[in-house]
Amino acid sequence: MTIGSLQKSLADFAAEREWEQFHTPKNLAMALAGESGELLEIFQWLTPEESSAVMEDPVRAPQVREEMADVFAYLLRLADVLDLDLEQALVEKIETNHRKYPAHLARGRADKYTQLGG
Amino acid sequence: MTIGSLQKSLADFAAEREWEQFHTPKNLAMALAGESGELLEIFQWLTPEESSAVMEDPVRAPQVREEMADVFAYLLRLADVLDLDLEQALVEKIETNHRKYPAHLARGRADKYTQLGG
Amino acid sequence: MTIGSLQKSLADFAAEREWEQFHTPKNLAMALAGESGELLEIFQWLTPEESSAVMEDPVRAPQVREEMADVFAYLLRLADVLDLDLEQALVEKIETNHRKYPAHLARGRADKYTQLGG
Amino acid sequence: MTIGSLQKSLADFAAEREWEQFHTPKNLAMALAGESGELLEIFQWLTPEESSAVMEDPVRAPQVREEMADVFAYLLRLADVLDLDLEQALVEKIETNHRKYPAHLARGRADKYTQLGG
Repeated sequence: MTIGSLQKSLADFAAEREWEQFHTPKNLAMALAGESGELLEIFQWLTPEESSAVMEDPVRAPQVREEMADVFAYLLRLADVLDLDLEQALVEKIETNHRKYPAHLARGRADKYTQLGG
Repeated sequence: MTIGSLQKSLADFAAEREWEQFHTPKNLAMALAGESGELLEIFQWLTPEESSAVMEDPVRAPQVREEMADVFAYLLRLADVLDLDLEQALVEKIETNHRKYPAHLARGRADKYTQLGG
Repeated sequence: MTIGSLQKSLADFAAEREWEQFHTPKNLAMALAGESGELLEIFQWLTPEESSAVMEDPVRAPQVREEMADVFAYLLRLADVLDLDLEQALVEKIETNHRKYPAHLARGRADKYTQLGG
Repeated sequence: MTIGSLQKSLADFAAEREWEQFHTPKNLAMALAGESGELLEIFQWLTPEESSAVMEDPVRAPQVREEMADVFAYLLRLADVLDLDLEQALVEKIETNHRKYPAHLARGRADKYTQLGG
């Protein structure tokens, strides 16, 4: 399914339940952050190595999948309510980051672009 | 662009900078939650009405767009690293929610499905 | 109880369970953010008015209390592990904010200090 | 300073700026989560070992201190607005956790209490 058709499904779902009243941008941003927090909790005590193998864990794998679907749902819903083109926003962001983080300066460094010098 | 091609762009961007070492699922889940927190900060003092008009605000509109692109970027990157099909996960989630939140019980109520009775 | 004695209780609790291995600053920052996310979820669909009356709600009041205790626990534990004086840090922050947000400029405005002019 | 006197300072600060109108429990919960997100961002790319040495890093140490003060400020302010005794809530939580996580079952395990068996 495309992003547009997923957004349509989510909008219909909300409309059928008269949930548009709850779906202000403010509330959706909260719901998005809340679901991101639940995703975080799955990973919080894992070592880096355990986190890399999380999809082989029969308990955690479906939890990760479900929390990521929840984050995605609220992100798409928020974009829809704001009439914001998420794919276009990301394309532009990637272009900006190509300028902010030149490969030869950023190589192997996790620093913010303001600290890259250059 | 499709989700697959956006993920390819993000993966190339990381590879060119030798950033795969930082992109463990644990770290990406943290980055996703951090960006969700920045999105939250834009909305935190707004009334519901102000939040609904946020895209007409010349200062906040581009901030919202940028933070949502960041959230989307880390969500796609995390799904890629985990080899998880985000669209399929969301389709399944919507199907599950159709069962959990029957329209006639959930109408106009923001309660969790466990409180819907039925 | 003082902050110091609460930190001692939390440290003993962790030591008795051999949980110090999990309590790196990184992991504790994740746990703190995760609990903040749970707190957020209680409020996400409430109107401002409903949120102000949340402690009169017999279902939500104990949830709020519990999530705030969890946030406080991880904040105190993180400060302890980092050997950081939380009260002193806050006293200094309040002093800084008195300079950044002069009352006559900030009155009735939720703007960030960088936008206050003056 | 005690928690009560810190809360008094924060309440006076808000009152002098006529910020009580912004300090609904909902908005304060958002601000708390937003600051937790900023704390998270400091740690997101660090290894466990780097995170343990973060207070020796001259750039990150003051950032950690500042973000933790911000989290603490909003947590205290929220507790004050809700008229909730944070220390008492934590004392009760620790007592509950002594029952939920018996030392002999929880030793060396990061599992949730529901998975401890016993």
